[in-house]
Amino acid sequence: MTTPATGRAVHLVSRPQGEPVPEHFRIVDEPVAEPADGELLVRNRYISVDPYMRGRMNDVESYVPPFALNRPMEGAALGEVAASRADGVAEGNLVLHNRGWREYATIPAAEARVLDPDLVPSVTAYLGIAGMTGLTAWVGLFDVARMAPGETVFVSGAAGAVGSAVGQMAKLRGAGRVIGSAGSRAKVEYVRDDLGFDAAFDYHDGPVAERLAELAPEGVDVYFDNVGGEHLEAALHNMRKHGRMALCGMISQYNATEPAPGPRDMFQTIARRVMMQGFLVGDHMKRMPAFLEDVGTWLADGSIRADETFADGIENAADAFLAMMRGENTGKMIVRL
Amino acid sequence: MTTPATGRAVHLVSRPQGEPVPEHFRIVDEPVAEPADGELLVRNRYISVDPYMRGRMNDVESYVPPFALNRPMEGAALGEVAASRADGVAEGNLVLHNRGWREYATIPAAEARVLDPDLVPSVTAYLGIAGMTGLTAWVGLFDVARMAPGETVFVSGAAGAVGSAVGQMAKLRGAGRVIGSAGSRAKVEYVRDDLGFDAAFDYHDGPVAERLAELAPEGVDVYFDNVGGEHLEAALHNMRKHGRMALCGMISQYNATEPAPGPRDMFQTIARRVMMQGFLVGDHMKRMPAFLEDVGTWLADGSIRADETFADGIENAADAFLAMMRGENTGKMIVRL
Repeated sequence: MTTPATGRAVHLVSRPQGEPVPEHFRIVDEPVAEPADGELLVRNRYISVDPYMRGRMNDVESYVPPFALNRPMEGAALGEVAASRADGVAEGNLVLHNRGWREYATIPAAEARVLDPDLVPSVTAYLGIAGMTGLTAWVGLFDVARMAPGETVFVSGAAGAVGSAVGQMAKLRGAGRVIGSAGSRAKVEYVRDDLGFDAAFDYHDGPVAERLAELAPEGVDVYFDNVGGEHLEAALHNMRKHGRMALCGMISQYNATEPAPGPRDMFQTIARRVMMQGFLVGDHMKRMPAFLEDVGTWLADGSIRADETFADGIENAADAFLAMMRGENTGKMIVRL
Repeated sequence: MTTPATGRAVHLVSRPQGEPVPEHFRIVDEPVAEPADGELLVRNRYISVDPYMRGRMNDVESYVPPFALNRPMEGAALGEVAASRADGVAEGNLVLHNRGWREYATIPAAEARVLDPDLVPSVTAYLGIAGMTGLTAWVGLFDVARMAPGETVFVSGAAGAVGSAVGQMAKLRGAGRVIGSAGSRAKVEYVRDDLGFDAAFDYHDGPVAERLAELAPEGVDVYFDNVGGEHLEAALHNMRKHGRMALCGMISQYNATEPAPGPRDMFQTIARRVMMQGFLVGDHMKRMPAFLEDVGTWLADGSIRADETFADGIENAADAFLAMMRGENTGKMIVRL
């Protein structure tokens, strides 16, 4: 393929204080570089939008650097190789890389992973259940929180990409009871009836701690936190002795303009001997092979389900991100180009 | 010895809301029971008063049941056997048991542990550095927080019984830098100059987070929490990546009448991959032999120091407890009968 002169990309043009809005983003025609030696030209087909990206919109050095203003943002993307000047990568190969938010990316081959489209039901699984999303769920549940068979598991954001995987993986590994929270009645039904959680509730229906106590009267052994805030406090106050929490995300706080309050009565961590562990999937890449063995089995025999919500076109990528932050997706939110 | 008709004991006569005062306690003459078969009559010599007892004064079932009203309170005590009707325990033996807050205790021999007074510099070490206090410090630092040589350790309540042991044990096992907080200039000097901490500060001297950042500019790997509240938040915001917190006590919150606020911006647990683990020493009794080997060596060669603050007479036991809660002790607070 001839390298196109330009491709569209999404820039962050100003930093949100609080909730991001469309005006923080702009579609820009960017020149597309010819691939040099060892590089690939990739035509992106699918772009991932994820909650953690909100943190990169702030001008704060956290575990990843902030997005630069007036430059294309970054994130996971799946594309096909349009031109290759690297050994071992051929035109037409499907690759996973981190230059999302744009139509074309010219990247060092070392930053791309060539994927086998035949190993998964749909290639987009590599952005979700068979990729970082699935690994996040698996590592958090089994390595960080050390879930054991028979235990009661609570997961917040249960209809989201990570949460829906967590609940299903917990059941597949023998959890005694799996409870999820989500943000609408439709999601609650989806989580319970389609994903097979034992129980679920809409966190708008009264205090989370009370709803959780009703659905887990014996308490919770493992809490997988995607939400933070009231959910984290409610989990703490419903933990069983020696309970473990995998702290994966706190989406309720990402738009906070003041430091968000922490869970009240932290002494419960001592009285109940609770372990809380924050984690980032990037620290656990060495677990990918063991994870892929599990998830490969589950995908092959149809025992795990990974729904996706699609938006179409780079011009809708920012809106897809904003919709995901508002919880309008079910499962993994993906922009299809 | 003839069993005396009565002995004095300290009753809890009403439950404190907020800070306890002398009127919550009363000295009462209690009948002393003759020891039955398998029992001992113990004349208490030393009584331990500890922060965790504040929790037992509330009418809340936590990890230990509440103290009954108008009954002698309980807690660790050292006494000599005044009469024995149990095999293997002789009159004059030194025993450790849990019926403190009273002059005489008639107890099943199975509830008493016979101690060797020659193994420690002073028998009161069995209430402190060579007992539950020392085990608490050792287990929290090495098992729960998994301190490694070269790491930076922060301990709150550093002049207290547990805190002073934590800092010294950290240094003895090769911590790179040990920082303590305490509640007065005299305690700060004691912790730094007498106990050998690398640095210490008075938590009244401005925001804890700022003082800690000055003294640990590279951040903290291990936080041992005895205080909770502002200290816990300050530690979180000064943790290094992959830092660990052993949550042992939260004395700043024991008199709270509302649920105490938690550390703000809990997302830092994720960004920094922080582990927080609440623990109770009672879950770790199997570690006692390994602990005693360490502390025995340190006591024998004089490399660890365990100061004690004494109050005299059962009539001063409640005041000793109240003084300890206000931080008037240095090291272990003990009532000598």
